Amino acid sequence: MKAGILGGGQLGRMLLQAAANYTVETYVMENDAHCPAAHLCHHFIKGDITNFDDVYNFGKMVDALTIEIESVNVDALEKLETEGIKIYPKPSAIRIIKNKIRQKEFYQSNEIPSSEFVITKNIADLNDHHHFLPAVHKIGEGGYDGKGVQVIKNKDHITKGFDAPAVLEKMVHIKKEIAIIIGMNDKGEAAIYPPAEMIFDPLLNLLDYQLSPAILSEKVLWKAEAIALKVVKQLNSAGLFAIELFVTDADDVLVNETAPRVHNSGHHTIEANYCSQYDMLWRIMLQYPLGNTKPILPSAIVNIIGAEGFNGLAKYEGLAETLKIDNAFVHLYGKQQTKPGRKMGHVTIMSKDYQDLTHKANKIKHLLKVVS
Amino acid sequence: MKAGILGGGQLGRMLLQAAANYTVETYVMENDAHCPAAHLCHHFIKGDITNFDDVYNFGKMVDALTIEIESVNVDALEKLETEGIKIYPKPSAIRIIKNKIRQKEFYQSNEIPSSEFVITKNIADLNDHHHFLPAVHKIGEGGYDGKGVQVIKNKDHITKGFDAPAVLEKMVHIKKEIAIIIGMNDKGEAAIYPPAEMIFDPLLNLLDYQLSPAILSEKVLWKAEAIALKVVKQLNSAGLFAIELFVTDADDVLVNETAPRVHNSGHHTIEANYCSQYDMLWRIMLQYPLGNTKPILPSAIVNIIGAEGFNGLAKYEGLAETLKIDNAFVHLYGKQQTKPGRKMGHVTIMSKDYQDLTHKANKIKHLLKVVS
Repeated sequence: MKAGILGGGQLGRMLLQAAANYTVETYVMENDAHCPAAHLCHHFIKGDITNFDDVYNFGKMVDALTIEIESVNVDALEKLETEGIKIYPKPSAIRIIKNKIRQKEFYQSNEIPSSEFVITKNIADLNDHHHFLPAVHKIGEGGYDGKGVQVIKNKDHITKGFDAPAVLEKMVHIKKEIAIIIGMNDKGEAAIYPPAEMIFDPLLNLLDYQLSPAILSEKVLWKAEAIALKVVKQLNSAGLFAIELFVTDADDVLVNETAPRVHNSGHHTIEANYCSQYDMLWRIMLQYPLGNTKPILPSAIVNIIGAEGFNGLAKYEGLAETLKIDNAFVHLYGKQQTKPGRKMGHVTIMSKDYQDLTHKANKIKHLLKVVS
Repeated sequence: MKAGILGGGQLGRMLLQAAANYTVETYVMENDAHCPAAHLCHHFIKGDITNFDDVYNFGKMVDALTIEIESVNVDALEKLETEGIKIYPKPSAIRIIKNKIRQKEFYQSNEIPSSEFVITKNIADLNDHHHFLPAVHKIGEGGYDGKGVQVIKNKDHITKGFDAPAVLEKMVHIKKEIAIIIGMNDKGEAAIYPPAEMIFDPLLNLLDYQLSPAILSEKVLWKAEAIALKVVKQLNSAGLFAIELFVTDADDVLVNETAPRVHNSGHHTIEANYCSQYDMLWRIMLQYPLGNTKPILPSAIVNIIGAEGFNGLAKYEGLAETLKIDNAFVHLYGKQQTKPGRKMGHVTIMSKDYQDLTHKANKIKHLLKVVS
C-alpha cells in the first residue's frame, strides 16, 4: 500500500515515525526539502500543497492520502476522490473545516452546540454588532496558529477586525478548555480518546501545558464525548479528528473548533496511550482494526516554542537538564531555524500523580528555551 | 551533529525512529537500497559494511558512528578512530566480540564467569576433547542468528563440528536465560536495564517469547547486574551493549555472549521503559544525559519469524486479530521477502500482570504467521 501525506511538518514527522511499524510505502509533499518529515519517507516530492496540479499529480502516485494541515487544495482532492483515491479525511470534511464561517454554519445546521456567532463580510459590518461584544473575530480562510483571530472587547477595538469574510463569535465564560481526539474508520466505527485539558497561564493567557485525561465530572465528560462524536459522525468521514471544546461556567459544553487531522493536543498519546493518534490514523488508512485509546498513565505536554527575540539557527538551552527528568520524553522537530512562537518540539511527561505532572511541566517551562 | 549507522536492518530502522526525536542528521550504509532502514535516514549510502574502503569513506562523512551488526570492517573503524571519528562501541570492543574465541578469552582473562571452553583449530581437534562433551561448538568468525553454532552431544556428533578455528563450550545446566542491556557514556557512567528473561518452548527448544523484568531472586539479580556491568567496564567502551547470561541450577550466573549494539532482547524498551535502548544510544552519541531504564509496566516480546516452508513476498496471517489485542504493539520491519526463520517483526505486550503477558504472548504465537 502506498500512502501520501500533504505537508511535511512535525505532524508528518510523527506520522512517519509511526508508519515505520508497518509495511506501508510513504510519500510526502511539501515545498521545503528540509522540512521535518522530508527524510523519513520513501518518496519526498517537492511541491505546493495549495496548488491544484501539484496535489493532483501527487495523489495519483498513491492509494490513500492524508493531510497534516488544512490549507491544501481541496478541488484536487475532490477530483482524486472521484478517481478512486482514498482520502482521510474526505475532501468534503476539509472544505467545511478550513473555512471558519462554513465550520460555524455546519455546527449550527447539525445542532452541535457552539458559541453564538454572526457572519461579517468586511470590517464595516462589525459596527452593526456592538451589542454582540465582547467577541472573537476569526477570518474565514487563511488563519493559522493564532493568526487570523482577534479579540474585540468593545467598539473601540473594532479596527482590529478583519476586512474580509469572517465570523464574529460571542465570548463565553469558560471554566475549562479541552480537546478530544477521535479516529473513525471506513465502517463508521469510532475510537474516542480521553479528553485532554489545556492549562493556561492566568497572567499571559497563553497555553502553558496540557494534562490528560482531563479532570471532569462524569456528566461533563459524557456530554463532551457525545458532542465530539457527533461532530465526526456529521462530518461523515473516516480519518483522525481533534475536537476542541469549551466547558462553560454552567457546565455546558461548546465546540470551539475541529481539526480534521492529527493534532498538537494528541502528542502525548505517543508514549502515554496504548495506541497513539498517529498509529490510529495508520490503522484507519491501512484498513486495520482501530486501536486502544486508553491511557497507560496520565500525562502532560509542554510545547517547546521559539523564544521571543530570537531568530536564526536554533539552540536549545536547558535541554540536558530536561533530559535528566526521569519521566520526561523529549521530541525535537528538527527545524533548523527558530523564530518567536515557532513550534520547535514538545516534551511529554508521564506520571500517575497529577501533582508530579504539574510540577514537572512547570519545571520544564522554565528550564527549556529555544534561542539562537 | 552527523551520525552514521553501519547496517540497515530492523535495528537500524528502530534506531532511526528514535533519532527523529532529536535534531541529528542521519547516515546509513547497507548493500541493499530497499533494506528496512534505507528510507528513514537523511542520507543512504549503498555500500559493503565489510569492505575497508566503503566503511572508511562512509565514516569520513560523519562525526559519530555506530553499528547494528558486528560483521563490519574493524580495520577501517580503527583508522577512523585515530582520525577523530567517535565510534560507539570502540573498534577494540567490536574486535573482541565479533570473534567468539577472542570473546571467550576476554571473559577468562578478566575473570568474568562464563562456561568452560577449549579452542579448536579444526574438526580433528574435537577428538581430543571427548571428555568435554556434551558441548556447544561455535565458529570463531562469521556466525550469525544461530548459524555457526552446533550442539555436540557425544563423540558421534563430532562430524557436525566446524573445520575452522572455533570454541568448544561445555554444556551447562541452566535454569534461566536472561539478557541485560547496558548503556555507557563517554564519561564511563552506566545505565542498566532490568534483565529480560527468555522463555523457551520445552519441546522445540526455540525462543518462544521474552518477559521483562525477569523474575529472579535478589541475589541472582545483583550477581547478574554486577557481571554484566563488569563486561561493559572491561570492554572499556561507551555504547549500548546486550549481555546474555545463563542462570545455572546452582544459581551461578555465567556470561553466554555479548552484543556491542542495540539488541533483539531490548525491543520492549520502546514502549515499556521510560528510555528505550534506541533512545539511550542516541543520548550517548549526542552527549546527552543517560536516560531512565525503569519499566513503565512489565512486558513481553514475541518475535515474528518467517514460517517454515514459505519463501517469497511476505503476507501476515492473523495480523488484524493481533492488532485487536488491546495491550499489544505491533512492529513490522518492512521486509518484502520472507524466508523460514527470517526476523520479520515483533510484538510487544504490556501489562502489570505476568499471567496476562504469558497468555497474550502464547495467543499471538498461534495467531500471527508470516507466509507467502
